[in-house]
Amino acid sequence: MGQDVDQGFTVDFKFPVYFTQNIFSVQNSIFSDAVRRLEPDKRHRVLFIIDENVIQSHPDLLSSLERYFSSNPEFLELISPPIPVPGGESVKNDFKHVLRLAEEISERGVDRQSFLAVIGGGAVLDMACFVSAICHRGIRTIRIPTTVLSQADSGVGVKNGINGFGKKNFFGTFVPPFAVINDSLFIDTLSHRDKLAGLAEAVKVALIRDREFFGYIEQNAALLATADRDAMNYHIRRTAELHLQHIRTSGDPFEFGSARPLDFGHWVAHKMESMTEHSLRHGEAVAIGVAVDSVYSMRMGFLQAAETERILCLLEHLGFTLW
Amino acid sequence: MGQDVDQGFTVDFKFPVYFTQNIFSVQNSIFSDAVRRLEPDKRHRVLFIIDENVIQSHPDLLSSLERYFSSNPEFLELISPPIPVPGGESVKNDFKHVLRLAEEISERGVDRQSFLAVIGGGAVLDMACFVSAICHRGIRTIRIPTTVLSQADSGVGVKNGINGFGKKNFFGTFVPPFAVINDSLFIDTLSHRDKLAGLAEAVKVALIRDREFFGYIEQNAALLATADRDAMNYHIRRTAELHLQHIRTSGDPFEFGSARPLDFGHWVAHKMESMTEHSLRHGEAVAIGVAVDSVYSMRMGFLQAAETERILCLLEHLGFTLW
Repeated sequence: MGQDVDQGFTVDFKFPVYFTQNIFSVQNSIFSDAVRRLEPDKRHRVLFIIDENVIQSHPDLLSSLERYFSSNPEFLELISPPIPVPGGESVKNDFKHVLRLAEEISERGVDRQSFLAVIGGGAVLDMACFVSAICHRGIRTIRIPTTVLSQADSGVGVKNGINGFGKKNFFGTFVPPFAVINDSLFIDTLSHRDKLAGLAEAVKVALIRDREFFGYIEQNAALLATADRDAMNYHIRRTAELHLQHIRTSGDPFEFGSARPLDFGHWVAHKMESMTEHSLRHGEAVAIGVAVDSVYSMRMGFLQAAETERILCLLEHLGFTLW
Repeated sequence: MGQDVDQGFTVDFKFPVYFTQNIFSVQNSIFSDAVRRLEPDKRHRVLFIIDENVIQSHPDLLSSLERYFSSNPEFLELISPPIPVPGGESVKNDFKHVLRLAEEISERGVDRQSFLAVIGGGAVLDMACFVSAICHRGIRTIRIPTTVLSQADSGVGVKNGINGFGKKNFFGTFVPPFAVINDSLFIDTLSHRDKLAGLAEAVKVALIRDREFFGYIEQNAALLATADRDAMNYHIRRTAELHLQHIRTSGDPFEFGSARPLDFGHWVAHKMESMTEHSLRHGEAVAIGVAVDSVYSMRMGFLQAAETERILCLLEHLGFTLW
């Protein structure tokens, strides 16, 4: 028969990641800029999906959101009141959350010309972005992460997912967001424990990508352990930048190959999270995972004892319990 | 705050589309070549998902498949016996088929290093490739389409999907296959009606992309209407080539923009399919859709009366009932 075809094409993915404060203040044009960036003159329809935990800790969020939209009637339209979804890992454990959200998207007439905007922690972003990825073959989505970990790490990446058949992220896709907006106000209202939990990913990405940043974390460990505002903001931005840089320059953003350096420390972390039924935060589990993988690297001869000691010391200085 | 990041990267997608005859004859190396093309020295684990209609009309398929694998033990391993799935559009109408197949994939330990191979008509490919796209963030999948329409059109493309909430392809993603293998033996066993149904997409893609091919179809209409073997094979290959070329050169393979020229004739087709509860074949509905869109184009002044007449004549010569 012959005449086989070698099909091939490239797809360009581009999305801005903004760092801002008070995203829905009427003076702040970033959300509007993000939605309008490809079609500045159109009126855009947006449906919000919001983490219930965020709604609870930000009682004025919904009214400022409405005010923001009504002050931009020419370009922005709320499709309906926001859809609240339960926060935390449990929202990733049952496919019924996916189908319920998909049904709401269908009922509200959200199409490929509309936008979804998701406000929440990593679990809510993972679940809602999975839904947006599989409805209408992908709805344009603005991610607005609200935790240290999601602002610094998962929220700025290209993955989504939910758990299935007892396996972490069994379901999921690689779909870049339309834009990411990191608002530091959401970080201010977190508990001390939640602020610290995010530091583990910073240590991980610094170890893999940036010796200088590792030095910064070491020098500022005491300050970071108190969750100092400026130090937190700096480490979130730097961790996010390194994560973005890794995806951009790895040559394999959708992980077609088998190398997954960003998973350093994550095998142990995922196991520990399920073993403790998520009473351990993801970041706390990652800290232990990084410690275990470092000791393992030392035993295998890839890392010297002094270097391993330095990593373990830093994690403890930052306030993590490793044993 | 400043310091926003413009994230951007490109992803290369490449996959071969083979045209062959008797794919699981032990002399035919194409399936093995396809699976081994990136890692020729590894032993590859493969799970088959097969359309029950195909199993019924090819009683020796399962045994030749087993023989093929046992004659290539160094490089090929069957993960388990194939998983049969119901053929036809009904398999796309209930999410339970997706979850059942995903559970089988989980139970059999299929991972991102394994392969799925899907043998079937367009509906089974759409459903099974949707499942493969959302498990483990995408499992490498070999598509083996068995109908005229899927070999010439949907099977060689980058879409998958199932219906939801009464909407055609409400759920779905854009995920290129790892390889496509078109085996002409599957076409030989189709009914006359099913062979003809596929011709509508050929007329559509010829109208959009290739005046010369349109002339070929006109000149060979009588032969095609008898489902002549060589004429069928040629039109399938040419339609597939044009479809692949369109995806490759459109500049927008994942349809981020709103232009969807391949949807010519499809709005009416989708409506008619649901109105007739799929007693009308997709191809038969597309023929009517192309006729309606052509007449509409004429009324809007985009198409001359003589050209419109020529299109309608051709569709009727090919054996389609338009009214």
